[in-house]
Amino acid sequence: MISKEKLFQLFTETRAQTEIICAPLEIEDYVVQPVVDVSPPKWHLGHTTWFFEEFVLKKFQENYTLFDENSAFVFNSYYESVGEKVVRTDRGNLSRPTVAWIYEYRSYVTKAILDLFDDSPSFSEELLNVLEIGCHHEKQHQELLLTDIKYILGNNPLLPIYQKNFEENPIQVFPQKWEAVAEGIYEIGHKGDSFFYDNEIGRHKVYLNPFEISNKLITNGEYLEFIQNGGYKDVLLWHAEAWDWINSENITAPFYWHNVAGNWKQYTLSGLQDLNLEAPLSHISYFEAFAFAQWKGMRLPTEFEWEVSQDKFKWGSRWEWTESSYDAYPNYKKAEGALGEYNGKFMVNQKVLRGGSVATSANHTRATYRNFFQPHLRWQFTGVRLAK
Amino acid sequence: MISKEKLFQLFTETRAQTEIICAPLEIEDYVVQPVVDVSPPKWHLGHTTWFFEEFVLKKFQENYTLFDENSAFVFNSYYESVGEKVVRTDRGNLSRPTVAWIYEYRSYVTKAILDLFDDSPSFSEELLNVLEIGCHHEKQHQELLLTDIKYILGNNPLLPIYQKNFEENPIQVFPQKWEAVAEGIYEIGHKGDSFFYDNEIGRHKVYLNPFEISNKLITNGEYLEFIQNGGYKDVLLWHAEAWDWINSENITAPFYWHNVAGNWKQYTLSGLQDLNLEAPLSHISYFEAFAFAQWKGMRLPTEFEWEVSQDKFKWGSRWEWTESSYDAYPNYKKAEGALGEYNGKFMVNQKVLRGGSVATSANHTRATYRNFFQPHLRWQFTGVRLAK
Amino acid sequence: MISKEKLFQLFTETRAQTEIICAPLEIEDYVVQPVVDVSPPKWHLGHTTWFFEEFVLKKFQENYTLFDENSAFVFNSYYESVGEKVVRTDRGNLSRPTVAWIYEYRSYVTKAILDLFDDSPSFSEELLNVLEIGCHHEKQHQELLLTDIKYILGNNPLLPIYQKNFEENPIQVFPQKWEAVAEGIYEIGHKGDSFFYDNEIGRHKVYLNPFEISNKLITNGEYLEFIQNGGYKDVLLWHAEAWDWINSENITAPFYWHNVAGNWKQYTLSGLQDLNLEAPLSHISYFEAFAFAQWKGMRLPTEFEWEVSQDKFKWGSRWEWTESSYDAYPNYKKAEGALGEYNGKFMVNQKVLRGGSVATSANHTRATYRNFFQPHLRWQFTGVRLAK
Amino acid sequence: MISKEKLFQLFTETRAQTEIICAPLEIEDYVVQPVVDVSPPKWHLGHTTWFFEEFVLKKFQENYTLFDENSAFVFNSYYESVGEKVVRTDRGNLSRPTVAWIYEYRSYVTKAILDLFDDSPSFSEELLNVLEIGCHHEKQHQELLLTDIKYILGNNPLLPIYQKNFEENPIQVFPQKWEAVAEGIYEIGHKGDSFFYDNEIGRHKVYLNPFEISNKLITNGEYLEFIQNGGYKDVLLWHAEAWDWINSENITAPFYWHNVAGNWKQYTLSGLQDLNLEAPLSHISYFEAFAFAQWKGMRLPTEFEWEVSQDKFKWGSRWEWTESSYDAYPNYKKAEGALGEYNGKFMVNQKVLRGGSVATSANHTRATYRNFFQPHLRWQFTGVRLAK
Repeated sequence: MISKEKLFQLFTETRAQTEIICAPLEIEDYVVQPVVDVSPPKWHLGHTTWFFEEFVLKKFQENYTLFDENSAFVFNSYYESVGEKVVRTDRGNLSRPTVAWIYEYRSYVTKAILDLFDDSPSFSEELLNVLEIGCHHEKQHQELLLTDIKYILGNNPLLPIYQKNFEENPIQVFPQKWEAVAEGIYEIGHKGDSFFYDNEIGRHKVYLNPFEISNKLITNGEYLEFIQNGGYKDVLLWHAEAWDWINSENITAPFYWHNVAGNWKQYTLSGLQDLNLEAPLSHISYFEAFAFAQWKGMRLPTEFEWEVSQDKFKWGSRWEWTESSYDAYPNYKKAEGALGEYNGKFMVNQKVLRGGSVATSANHTRATYRNFFQPHLRWQFTGVRLAK
Repeated sequence: MISKEKLFQLFTETRAQTEIICAPLEIEDYVVQPVVDVSPPKWHLGHTTWFFEEFVLKKFQENYTLFDENSAFVFNSYYESVGEKVVRTDRGNLSRPTVAWIYEYRSYVTKAILDLFDDSPSFSEELLNVLEIGCHHEKQHQELLLTDIKYILGNNPLLPIYQKNFEENPIQVFPQKWEAVAEGIYEIGHKGDSFFYDNEIGRHKVYLNPFEISNKLITNGEYLEFIQNGGYKDVLLWHAEAWDWINSENITAPFYWHNVAGNWKQYTLSGLQDLNLEAPLSHISYFEAFAFAQWKGMRLPTEFEWEVSQDKFKWGSRWEWTESSYDAYPNYKKAEGALGEYNGKFMVNQKVLRGGSVATSANHTRATYRNFFQPHLRWQFTGVRLAK
Repeated sequence: MISKEKLFQLFTETRAQTEIICAPLEIEDYVVQPVVDVSPPKWHLGHTTWFFEEFVLKKFQENYTLFDENSAFVFNSYYESVGEKVVRTDRGNLSRPTVAWIYEYRSYVTKAILDLFDDSPSFSEELLNVLEIGCHHEKQHQELLLTDIKYILGNNPLLPIYQKNFEENPIQVFPQKWEAVAEGIYEIGHKGDSFFYDNEIGRHKVYLNPFEISNKLITNGEYLEFIQNGGYKDVLLWHAEAWDWINSENITAPFYWHNVAGNWKQYTLSGLQDLNLEAPLSHISYFEAFAFAQWKGMRLPTEFEWEVSQDKFKWGSRWEWTESSYDAYPNYKKAEGALGEYNGKFMVNQKVLRGGSVATSANHTRATYRNFFQPHLRWQFTGVRLAK
Repeated sequence: MISKEKLFQLFTETRAQTEIICAPLEIEDYVVQPVVDVSPPKWHLGHTTWFFEEFVLKKFQENYTLFDENSAFVFNSYYESVGEKVVRTDRGNLSRPTVAWIYEYRSYVTKAILDLFDDSPSFSEELLNVLEIGCHHEKQHQELLLTDIKYILGNNPLLPIYQKNFEENPIQVFPQKWEAVAEGIYEIGHKGDSFFYDNEIGRHKVYLNPFEISNKLITNGEYLEFIQNGGYKDVLLWHAEAWDWINSENITAPFYWHNVAGNWKQYTLSGLQDLNLEAPLSHISYFEAFAFAQWKGMRLPTEFEWEVSQDKFKWGSRWEWTESSYDAYPNYKKAEGALGEYNGKFMVNQKVLRGGSVATSANHTRATYRNFFQPHLRWQFTGVRLAK
C-alpha cells in the first residue's frame, strides 16, 4: 500500500504532467476527434478530472460541492454503470464546455483533493487505493493524449509540429542477439506491493517450451525490406481478416509513413522527417507484425515468453505486439462496483502488448503490465520483437 | 450593373456583418461539424475569404502575394475544378489553421480588396461582377453560419444560448385568408438589372391553372394538431421514401422540439423556450410539409404559383417548401469556368424553397430567388404555406 | 370503360404472357435477388397473383376460399396499408413457398377469376376497373421480369443466355433530323377513355418555348465517343451527386458493357455480344444521360416537350430520360384506399422517363405514359434522345 | 497413416452422407444465403467436390479431364492462393450453375476418385493424406450444411420442417456434479496416428491450477432464469463489445427462441416446438455464454481444462464455448501450399469451442479437436458448461 506522502507526490506530479503535455496545443486542437479511437484532448482533461470527483471527492470529501452539476457527465466514459454517458463517437462534436471551463474544473478538483490531503490526518486504505488508481488512470490518459495529439496533427493536411524536440525514435546501438530461455515452469503475474492493475495479478505458473527471443526491436529498415519484397501483396502471410483489412483500407505501409516523390518520410511529433532506417519500427498493427514475422519465418513471442525473458533485453520505446490474445489470468476477479468494469470487459478480440513506449509516462509500466488493443489499430507507438 | 460606389458599401457591410454574426462564439464553437450538412464556422469564414482571393485578387490585383500558399486550399469547397478540396466530411477534424489565423487571413484579404478599390480608378464589368458575386456568396454563408451555429449549440447537451435576443419567431398578427389567382399565362424569372443567380434567369412564360394560396404560414399550434392526430403514424400521408426516413430516424416532431416531461419546448438561438403555438412552424423537412398538407386535404404551392402570388402575402420569416423539384429553367446556361459549377450541379434530388428566413441577410432574397435543399433536411428555418 | 369481353381477352393474354416470359428459366433463377432494386422472378409471379386475390377475389367473389391463408402475405409489396409486408431486401432469401407452389397459386387464382367471368352476367364498373388495373399491373411486372432476369443472369459469372433470339437492339435505319416545335400553349396528359394511371391524368395546359428535338436515339457509337473523350473524368459535366456516384461506384461505361481485352462487348438477353455501334444506347442512368447531353452542348427534353413532339419521331425501344422531375400534375388526386398508394408516394427524388422499351409489354405504353426511376438506376432499358 | 481400404470406406460413406443430408431439400432451398456466415447448400455440395477435383484429381489422376473448365471456380472458397474466388457475400446470388449441374459434377468427380482407387495398385502417402483431408473437409461441411439449412428454413416466415424426427435436444438424465482436477503439468494436443488438423498438434505441456468442472451442460431452464432475472439488461455482466452487440442487434434470448403470446417456443429442424426446459441450451454466442457464467459467479473452462477433464463427463451434443482465444499452439506450423491456409489464417478474434454437436458427423470430433467461431455467432449448436 502506497504511503500518504508518496501519494501526495504522485498526485501533484501527475496532475502537473498532464498540463505540461497539453501546453503546446492551440485551443482548436483540444476539440476535434478525427476517428472514433482517438479522443479530443479536452475530453482526456475532463475525464481524468471527473474520475477524481466521482470516485474520490463525492465519497471521501464531506460536504463536497460539485463544480458543475450539469456538465460533468459529459466526461464519463466507458464506465457504463455510473450515470449517462456521451456516445463515444460524439465527443468530437462538443464545443462546450470550453477548454477554459475544463481547466477551471481541473483546478477546482485538484485543489479539493489537496484540501483532502491537508484536512485528513490519515487516509483509509480504500482512499489511498482509489486515489492511486486515479493517478495511474491519468497516467494512462497521458499516453493517450500524446498518441491522440499525434493523430490529430498528423492527419491535418498542414502536418503541424507538436514539439520540436520530442524524441520518438531512440536508436538501438547494440548488435542483434538471440537470447535463449530453457523449457520449464515459470511464474507469471504481478508480485510485490507496488501498484498493479486487476488484469496482471493472480500470479500463476505456466509451462514454457524452450525458445529464443531477440534483444532488439525490428527497425524501419528491416520493415522496408518486407514492403519492397511484396509483403503486403502475399496473401499467404496474412490472417484472413487482415487480408480483407489491408485491401479494403488500402494499407501498404506503416501509419504515418508518407511516400513523397519516391522518398519515404515519417510524420513525428516533431514534424515530417526523412525515414530513419535505424529507428525502431513503429505504428504497425498486430496484423502487420504477424505478417512480417511470417515473412521472416519466425513468430511473435507470447506474453508469457516476453515476461519471462524481458530482463535479458532493453525495452520501453515501443509497445510490443505479442501472439497472446487478451484473456483473463486464472482466478481473475473483477473489482466490486463501477471500478470493476475496468479491465475485464475488454477481454475479447484484443491482443496483448508488452513493454512501453516513448509516450508512456515515467514509472507507468513494468514487466508484468498488460496493455491491449484490437489487432488492426495503429495509432499507438507499437513495434515488433521476434521470437523463434 | 452595380456601381463601384455601391459595391464598396456592399463589400464593407458584408465583411463586417459576417464577423458580427460570429462575435458571440467561443473558439471551440468555430471548430466542430456534428453532421455533414453543417460546416464549422471557421470554415465559413475561411471559405468566403478564399473566394475573394481565388476569383478576385489572383486575377485582378497585380503582383498579389497570397496570404499563405499552403493553407488556403483547405477552404475550397464544392468548386471541384479549382485545385484539391478537403473532403466535406473532414472539415470538422481540422484544428489548424486556427481561428486566429483565419481572422488574420480575412483582414489581409479584406484589406487587399479595399486597396483594389483605392488603386483602380475604374472597375471592369467583369471585376464588378465577380466582386458582387463574392459579396452575395458571403451573404449566403451568413445564413448558413446562423443555422449551423444553431445546430452546433442545439445539439450540445448543455443547450447553450447564442444570443439572448435573437428574434426567431415573429408572430403573424393578421387573420388567415385565401388569395385567389386566375388561370393564364404568367412570366417567371428574374427581371431588371439588380443582382441575381444563374438559376433564376431565363425569364419565361408558364401556364397556370386557377389556384388559391394562404396569406399566412402554418403555425406551431396547427402542426401540433397534426402530431396529436397521429400524423406521423399514418402511412398514407407520406412519400415512400419519407416513411422509411421517419421510421429509421425515429422522427416524431419538428427538429429542435423537445418534449420535456410532457411539455413541448423549442431550442432557439436564445436558448430553450416553451413552444409558442402562435409562432410560424419551423425546421421541418419537405417530407413533413407534404404530409401535413395531405392531412389538411390541401397541397403546397408550386414555385411558379408562389412567385406569381407572392405580392399578395407577407413572406420572409421562413423558407417555404414548394411542390417543385429543383429543375433548370428553359434556356438555363451555366456560367463559364469554375463559377459555372455554381448552381446547375445541384439540380437533381432537391426541392425548391421560396421566400427567406429570419436568418437571411438583409436584401439577400427576392421574389424570384430559388433556394433548394434535399427533401429530408431540417436544419434551416423552413416553413409551410398551403395552396389549394 | 373497358367491356367485359375485352377484359376477358386482356386478362387471359396477360396471365399467359407472364408465364411465357418465365418459360426459359431454371428453378434456381426464380429465387435470387442480387440487388435491392431487382426482385426474384418468383416474387413477381406471386405478387401479380396476390393482387388479383386481394383486390378482386376477396371482394367480388362470394365465398371465395383463399389458396393459402399463411403464405400469400409474402407477396404483398409496397402497399403498406394492406397487412404486413416482407422487407424488400429479404425477398431473395425466401426459398419457400416454392416455385411449384407459386404456379399452383397462379392457376388457382386465374381459374377463380375465370369463374367470375362465367358466373357473373355483368360486371360492375368497379370490378371492371380493378380487374383492368390488375392486368396492367401485371404487364408492368412483365417488363420488370425481363429486366430483373437480365440482371440476375448478367451478373452471374457464367453469363448464361436467356433466349437466343431476343431482339434488344433494333437499329434506327433513318437519318438524324431535328424536329422543330413552335412556342405556345399545349395540352398535356391523358385524354380519351382508354386505360391510364392516376399520374398521367389531370389534362392541363403548359406553355412551351420553341425547341428542337432529335428524331433519333443516341447510339452506342456516339456514347463511345463520349467515353473516349474523357466524359467520365470531366467534373464539369456532372451533377455533384452524380460525380460522387461514378467515383464511389467506379462507373466508367454503361451497365452490361464489358471491356474484354480491349474490345467492347455487351451482355444481352441473348448472351454476350460484340458492341453494336449502330444500336441505340441502353442501360445508362439519368446522371450519364445528362452528362452526355452537357458534353454535346445540348440537353434532354422535358417530359412536356417529349409528349408534345412525340408524333414526329419513332419511339418504343428505350425508356427515354427527360429533364423533368417526377412531380404531380396540377389537380393530381390519389385514388381512395390501398390502390391510392399507387403512384403518388413515389413523387420525390425521381426523374420521368417517356417512351417504352424492347421489354415493355404490347400496348402497355402510350404518349402520355409517365415512367419514373431514381437518377442513378441503370438496370432498365434506358436511352437518350437530345433536344436543344 | 490410414490404409487404402479404410480410406475407400471413408470416402464412399462421406460422399453418400452429404447427399442424404440434402435429400429433404427443395431446389429453392439450395440457392439462398440469408446472411454472410451461412452458405447456400448448393455451394457446400459444389465446394466439397471442387476440393477433390482441385487437390486430388488434377494432381494424381493422369489425363484427368475437368468436368467443366469455366464453372468450377465458383466453388473455391477461402483458399485465396488457388485461382479467383467468388466474393463470399455473393454466393447467394448465383442461380447458375444449377443444382442438377452440381449433382452431375459430384457424380463425375466421385466416379473419377473411385476409378483412382480401382486403377492404382497402391496409393502414395501424399495421396492417402490429401484424400483423407478431403473426406474430413466434407464432413466439416456436413455439419455446416445442417446448421445452414436450419438458418435458411428457420428464418423463413413459414418456418418449414426439415425432417420430422431430427433429434436436436437429447436430455441429460443424470444429476449435476462438480468434477475436481488437481494442479499440475498436463499434456495437450493430438496424439497417435489417427486423423487430426494442423491446429491440434504440437503436443505440449501446460501448467494448470486446480479447478472444478460440471459434468452437465446448462439447460434451457437455467438460461431462462438468467433472462427472467434481467441478465440481458445488466451491463456489468457483459463485455463492452457484447453490450454494444446485444443493444444494436436487439438480442434478448438465444437464437431460434420465439416468444409466442407469452410462451417460449424454439425452432428446431423438426419445426417449431415448445421450449423444453430440460434440454441443453443451444444457439448462444460466446458473449452470452460469458455473461451467463458471470451471473452464476462462475466461469467457462479454458480449452486446456476442458481437454484434460473431458473423460470425466459426457459431451457431444453441443459445441462448448471456452474462455480460450483461438491462438496457435507452440511450434504450430502451417502446411505447405494452398492447404497451408487451412487453419492458421483464422487465428485472430475467434474463441475456441470444444466437444461436438448433434449436427457433427459421426467420428468427426475428438477430445483434442479445436473448433472456433467469432464470439457473436449463434447459428451453430453451441452450449455452455461451467467451471470454477
